[in-house]
Amino acid sequence: MQSLGARTLDWLEDAIVMVDQTRLPGSFETIRISNVPDLVAAIRRLSVRGAPAIGVAGGFGVALAARRCGTGNTAFDDAVQTIRMARPTAVNLAKMVDRVAAAAVRGPDAALEEALAVRDEEIIASELMGIRGADLVSELSFGRSAYRILTICNTGGLASVERGTALAVVQTLHERAALEETLVLETRPLLQGARLTTWELQRMGAPNRLVVDGAGPYLISIGIVDAVLAGADRIAANGDTANKIGTFSLALAAQHAGVPFIVVAPESTIDMATASGDDIEIEYRDGQEVISFGGAMTTPNNTEAINPAFDLTPSGLITAIVTDQRVVRLDQGESLSSV
Amino acid sequence: MQSLGARTLDWLEDAIVMVDQTRLPGSFETIRISNVPDLVAAIRRLSVRGAPAIGVAGGFGVALAARRCGTGNTAFDDAVQTIRMARPTAVNLAKMVDRVAAAAVRGPDAALEEALAVRDEEIIASELMGIRGADLVSELSFGRSAYRILTICNTGGLASVERGTALAVVQTLHERAALEETLVLETRPLLQGARLTTWELQRMGAPNRLVVDGAGPYLISIGIVDAVLAGADRIAANGDTANKIGTFSLALAAQHAGVPFIVVAPESTIDMATASGDDIEIEYRDGQEVISFGGAMTTPNNTEAINPAFDLTPSGLITAIVTDQRVVRLDQGESLSSV
Repeated sequence: MQSLGARTLDWLEDAIVMVDQTRLPGSFETIRISNVPDLVAAIRRLSVRGAPAIGVAGGFGVALAARRCGTGNTAFDDAVQTIRMARPTAVNLAKMVDRVAAAAVRGPDAALEEALAVRDEEIIASELMGIRGADLVSELSFGRSAYRILTICNTGGLASVERGTALAVVQTLHERAALEETLVLETRPLLQGARLTTWELQRMGAPNRLVVDGAGPYLISIGIVDAVLAGADRIAANGDTANKIGTFSLALAAQHAGVPFIVVAPESTIDMATASGDDIEIEYRDGQEVISFGGAMTTPNNTEAINPAFDLTPSGLITAIVTDQRVVRLDQGESLSSV
Repeated sequence: MQSLGARTLDWLEDAIVMVDQTRLPGSFETIRISNVPDLVAAIRRLSVRGAPAIGVAGGFGVALAARRCGTGNTAFDDAVQTIRMARPTAVNLAKMVDRVAAAAVRGPDAALEEALAVRDEEIIASELMGIRGADLVSELSFGRSAYRILTICNTGGLASVERGTALAVVQTLHERAALEETLVLETRPLLQGARLTTWELQRMGAPNRLVVDGAGPYLISIGIVDAVLAGADRIAANGDTANKIGTFSLALAAQHAGVPFIVVAPESTIDMATASGDDIEIEYRDGQEVISFGGAMTTPNNTEAINPAFDLTPSGLITAIVTDQRVVRLDQGESLSSV
C-alpha cells in the first residue's frame, strides 16, 4: 500500500492513489487507480467525494487518459467526457477536467504537470480558506474566546487534498485554541458527517458531538451555535449555493436565529457561467441509499424513495462566502462579481 | 396472541395489549402488559409511542395499578407518578394519567371505565381530525383535485388508537380520492417515518415516497408539496408546538415557500397551563440512538452525540392547528384561547 501522507489522494508511480472513503471509519484503506473506468466508478460510488477532491481526481484522470491513449484522438476525447460527466453538481469536476484537457494539447507530460498544479493549488487554497474563515468567525462572534460551530457533511481533508474547506476553518480555529466544539450533522443518507467528519475531528483532537440532521435547525435556534459553516458543490454567479442535502434548512434556521451562515469553498467552486441556483443541475441518486442502511432494509418491501443529493441555498440566506482569495459579505450587499 | 383488530392498543382480558412498534416493519407482534413496570419500560423503549397512544396507555396503566393495588394507598400513588413521568414532553400522558387517577377515587372499576372512555374519545377524535384537516387542505390548496402532502415521524393509527392525527388527514384525503402522494421523512434517529408511516400508507394503498430528513425543506422549496402536516406532543397556550425533532425545519421551509404548515392534534394535546414553548421540557434521549443505525455503529469509537427527541415550532410559523373540535387559523390571528 502506497503512502499518501496527510493527503486524501495523490499521483504516485503513474497512477492515482486515494483513500477509499466508503470504508471509513471502520477501515483506512487506499486504492490505486490506473484506468479511467475505475476512476469513474470510484467517483460514482463516492470512494472519492467532496467538490475539490473530485476536481483533483478528475484532473488526474485526464492525465491518466493522456498517458494511456495519447491526446488529440477520439479515445482521449471520450475518456475526458466520461470523467467530466461522472457526477453533475460539483462544478470543480468539469472545470478541472477542462483545464487539464486544455493543457493536454501540449501532450501527456503537460497534462500531468497541469493536474499536479491543480493538486498543489487546492492544498494552498485550503490553508487560505482556513485562515480567512477563522478570521471571519472571530470577527462575527466578537467577544467570545472560543466558538461553537455547526457543520454538515464532510468538508475536511477527505473532501479535498488536505485540510478541506469548511472543516479547514474548524481546524484553524482549533489550532488557534479558539474552538469550543463542533456539532456535526450525521448527513443522511450516506452519513458523511457521522463516518468521516467525526473521524477527522477526532484525529485532530477537536471536541465534537454528533446530531441527527433534523436536530440542526433546533440546536441553532436555542443559542448553542455561534456560526454554521458549510461547503459548496457549486456557487452560481448570484451567490446561490448547491451543497449537501440538508444545508438549506440550516441556512433558514440561522437566519431565523440571527446566527451567521458561512459558505466556505475555493474559487474553483464558483461558476460565473451559471447565473443562479435555478440553473444548477441537482443530482438525484438511487433511492436504495434511503431505504436501506449497511445492507439492511429499514423499510417495508417495495418502499419507493426520492433521493436528491444536494439542495440549493439562496444567496439571501448566506452571510458570507469565504474563498481562498476573498471574503464576500453577501449580507452587506457585496456580490461575487463586484469584489 | 390476542387480536387488536384495527387498534394499536386496547384493554383485553384484564391487561393492556399493544402492537410492539419496535419490531415493525419486519414483524407484526403484540405484547400483553399486566403490570406497571412493564408498561413504563414499553413506553420508554417506544414499543408504544405517539402522544395520543401514550396518553391512552397511561390511562390503562392507572386502571391496571388500581386493580392490582387498590386505590387511595401509597403503592397506587407511586405507580401513578411512575407512569406519569415515563416520558416528559407529550402532555397527553400526564393529562390522561391525572384524569384516570381522579376517577380512581371511586375505585378500580371507575378507573377502568374512565380509561376506556379515554380510548373511545381518541378514536372519535381521530375521525374528526381527519375530516377537519382534509377540509382545510382542500380549502387552502383550492383548485387542485389531489394533494401532495409532506409529513414527519409517525402520526397514524400507530400513534393513537386508530387512524391517528396528521396521518388521519392523509387517510381521509385518500378515502376521498384527493391524495396525489405523501412524502414521508424517515425521521432519524429511530426511523418512525421509514419504519411505521410507510407501512401504514402501504396498508391503506396510499402512494408514498420516502425521503431523508434533510431533504424535506428542499422538496418544499421546489414546489412539489401542497401542505406540510405534522402531529404534536404538546401545544402551549400561545400555539408554540413541540413535535418530533426536524419539524421546526419544515415549518421554516414552508413559510419561506408560502406552503401551509398544519399541526394536527387532539384537544388533549393542548396544554393551556404552559404559556409558551420556552416552558416545554424537551426530552433528550441516549446518544446511542444517533451513533448507530439498525444496531450497527456508524461512527468511530468514542463518538459522543446529543439527541433531542423533539423541537419547538413557534406559533408564528404555523398556518393552523387542527383538532377534533376546531380549526385555529393562527395565520389569521386566531388563538387557542379566543376560538
